[in-house]
Amino acid sequence: MISNLAAAELLGATLAQADFYPRLPQQRRLYEAARTAILLQQLSAGSKLPSTRNLASELGIARNTVIAAFEQLAAEGFVITSTGSGTYVSASLPSTSQPKRKLDGNAEVVPETPPNGFATLSKRGTQLTEFAAGTRYEIQPFAPGDADFSVFPFKLWQRLQNRVWREARPDLLDYGQAGGYLPLRRAIAEYLRVSRSVKVSIEQVMITAGTQQSLDLCALLLADVDDTTWVENPCYWGARRIFESCEVNLHPVAVDAEGIAPSEADLATNPRLIYVTPSHQYPTGVVMSLARRRMLLDLAQRKGAWILEDDYDSEFRYTGRPLAALQGLDTHGRVIYMGTFSKVLYPGIKVGYLVAPPALVEPFKAALYDLQRPGQLMLQAALADFIALGHFATHIRKIRQAYGAKRELLRKTLAAQLGQSAPISGEESGLHLVVEFPDHVDDEALARLAAESGIAVNALSHYYLEPPVRRGLLVGYAYVPAEKIVYYGKLLAHVIQAGLRR
Amino acid sequence: MISNLAAAELLGATLAQADFYPRLPQQRRLYEAARTAILLQQLSAGSKLPSTRNLASELGIARNTVIAAFEQLAAEGFVITSTGSGTYVSASLPSTSQPKRKLDGNAEVVPETPPNGFATLSKRGTQLTEFAAGTRYEIQPFAPGDADFSVFPFKLWQRLQNRVWREARPDLLDYGQAGGYLPLRRAIAEYLRVSRSVKVSIEQVMITAGTQQSLDLCALLLADVDDTTWVENPCYWGARRIFESCEVNLHPVAVDAEGIAPSEADLATNPRLIYVTPSHQYPTGVVMSLARRRMLLDLAQRKGAWILEDDYDSEFRYTGRPLAALQGLDTHGRVIYMGTFSKVLYPGIKVGYLVAPPALVEPFKAALYDLQRPGQLMLQAALADFIALGHFATHIRKIRQAYGAKRELLRKTLAAQLGQSAPISGEESGLHLVVEFPDHVDDEALARLAAESGIAVNALSHYYLEPPVRRGLLVGYAYVPAEKIVYYGKLLAHVIQAGLRR
Repeated sequence: MISNLAAAELLGATLAQADFYPRLPQQRRLYEAARTAILLQQLSAGSKLPSTRNLASELGIARNTVIAAFEQLAAEGFVITSTGSGTYVSASLPSTSQPKRKLDGNAEVVPETPPNGFATLSKRGTQLTEFAAGTRYEIQPFAPGDADFSVFPFKLWQRLQNRVWREARPDLLDYGQAGGYLPLRRAIAEYLRVSRSVKVSIEQVMITAGTQQSLDLCALLLADVDDTTWVENPCYWGARRIFESCEVNLHPVAVDAEGIAPSEADLATNPRLIYVTPSHQYPTGVVMSLARRRMLLDLAQRKGAWILEDDYDSEFRYTGRPLAALQGLDTHGRVIYMGTFSKVLYPGIKVGYLVAPPALVEPFKAALYDLQRPGQLMLQAALADFIALGHFATHIRKIRQAYGAKRELLRKTLAAQLGQSAPISGEESGLHLVVEFPDHVDDEALARLAAESGIAVNALSHYYLEPPVRRGLLVGYAYVPAEKIVYYGKLLAHVIQAGLRR
Repeated sequence: MISNLAAAELLGATLAQADFYPRLPQQRRLYEAARTAILLQQLSAGSKLPSTRNLASELGIARNTVIAAFEQLAAEGFVITSTGSGTYVSASLPSTSQPKRKLDGNAEVVPETPPNGFATLSKRGTQLTEFAAGTRYEIQPFAPGDADFSVFPFKLWQRLQNRVWREARPDLLDYGQAGGYLPLRRAIAEYLRVSRSVKVSIEQVMITAGTQQSLDLCALLLADVDDTTWVENPCYWGARRIFESCEVNLHPVAVDAEGIAPSEADLATNPRLIYVTPSHQYPTGVVMSLARRRMLLDLAQRKGAWILEDDYDSEFRYTGRPLAALQGLDTHGRVIYMGTFSKVLYPGIKVGYLVAPPALVEPFKAALYDLQRPGQLMLQAALADFIALGHFATHIRKIRQAYGAKRELLRKTLAAQLGQSAPISGEESGLHLVVEFPDHVDDEALARLAAESGIAVNALSHYYLEPPVRRGLLVGYAYVPAEKIVYYGKLLAHVIQAGLRR
């Protein structure tokens, strides 16, 4: 803060600047200098301004000029003139978001949009947001607002967090500088070895803020602008957005009953990245066959491509044991494996992980820190305890059972109403199922129809990069309360039937 | 899981695939098929394999071939043969990270690096990580490992978090879909209006996971590859990394005693983005003058550039009141304002915010969700309470006082030892001060020398994009325990003196 006595000096220095509105009359220049000093709080609220006489003499200008400037400031509420005692900066300033006087004295309106002639968004910004008018959910409840976390062990989770906070370790308040909290990386490595047959040492595990963040690292570090990136078609559009933001060249590859199925034309390209969801293709639910897995690993090795394996929902397999990860078959270090806790615990936890081949560990750790500056080590510590104490395994069993029951109930409800008119597909896993339509059906219109009934589902055609091959609806059931599955299921079936009859 | 009876069928189907190692003898093909089925858990642990006789007849191959394949699987621990009762898949599989047999029968070692002929990292990946061998800290303690969070109200913070978790609102476990938790956005808007003179409505505030994430959104949405971006020189290198990852064209602009000081040559360029730290230039500590602020706003308006105002440490002003933000003077909606809680609360909290001009609110919210999938709403709720209940204001006062005392102690300690040989600069604010050296001094060597004494400081020249103009050391004091300031300060002064004498 500048002392009261220095106010005249401050205003004088501002006025002395050659570039300070040189063409304006003195009175307006003084007004501008004072107003800005007040807004910048160089002249603080309640502080007294010099008398008009003193200021005029300090600045070498006519006293009337000063009086006129002060009057304008008072009229606009910047200063208060108290007869006999002087002029003070107002305690409450006029809202600066109100129209203000421009230098020419006319009222000025803050424009809502930038002036014509300049693009608002960059080209990539336009591309990245043009899809945005669509729905914001993916595997969210098919009835939004009804999120069900009845299986989540709130009390236990709170207890574990409290234990960590009571310890108050200062190092856990800092950024995560070595790929994440070591005991969590160890717990993840063990889990992945045992449950997913991933070949992994602790060193290779890095904690990220989720799959979007994992993919961003991979795309930035392993591909350049316009490098070819194979994505499954249809594809997880969250991944698509990341690849688009990194400006790689998306090359859609068809998916058949065995997973990604590159044609001769596809094979003639040289992908730098291959993004796949082998355990449960998103969104169709297909499991990648062994032959395809081998083919893909072979191809990656021959072409020097990197396979990005997104194992986002491998924990949800309702019959039999989960399939092993593609990464476990990789003998040449070409697979980057990634997973997330957002699907098993709760979406907003924002803790994911990636397993980098040994050759990539160091650059990935460096870029993870430099670009994303990870944190949340307290949360990571609670999560490490959650896993180490066996609660994670218990929780997976519990939700697998709960979600499996919901899935079966939803499947039955829909099948009973829809019969063969709209068969239900998707393997016995995941967090959503797919209701398939004949090719001529406008599934996007049907999704909008469902939305009007308060049901949030996504059109299958929405996930294709090229003209859609199949039509249908993705129906997420994980977060719908079990007792409402039948009600919403019937409602959805009615909407579908009405839509199909059109 | 595939049933026991279907095992023969599974192996048969695999062998029938034309591309399944067509040149290998049948015995090795069968071995490969079985081993992979076991690793993929298509044949589950403990399950019984068909008898050699049955399998041979099913597959139409010689029984000896089957026996030989089974023997190899048994030798490697994949199956156990129990005389009289048959062959079973092992309950404990051999570690797949051990060297395995290759198809030619020789032991195979998983390569540590990808095969020759393929670049490991992309060009941008190489660029983004080449700097990475350097230090990982910025305003971290000048003695690492001594982080001081004695001022942080652990108990209070825990209590607020528990209150939120006890409520167990399911919507707070989801992703943040509307720019963040509304009460936190409201609290931030009020804080910024009152304390930083930012012109802001709640709608304009978005919660991000920190400044890196805020900058990434801005660079992606507002600039294209190779678009000119002005950065201060020297510059915050965390920002530099983000801009590099977005592949904009960095154009360094000199900083003088009034802040960013574009030359005629600079003014001849057409920047799309202008990244500045007006309150406390990082790392020099200069405050941007009013004239420069006006000039910059004018220029942005004329050229259609966006100003990214990073107000990262505005809360730390030890004398007088904090200066108002540049954004408050912007009448044309050209400034994107950003701040963070990482400096005031603790680095790992990873909650930041940005204030977008009205025209950018919708695209920014959409891209925030699509690209970063924000979460941590429980934490946001606790933080909203922390601010609303007045604890934030109290905490700022407390740490301002604590850090101010540390700063003064450090300044005195260093000045007493160093005198005029290495003057101390940086305004009376921030979380670090700068010890300046004569131009010929190798500050990077001096930083390494300090590191050998266990003191983590950064060379000023490290922050220049072009040949450095000034030399010196950045010394962060915020996280050093007060009682160790003098000890470490003297140690650092000795190191500097020794270095300067060389």
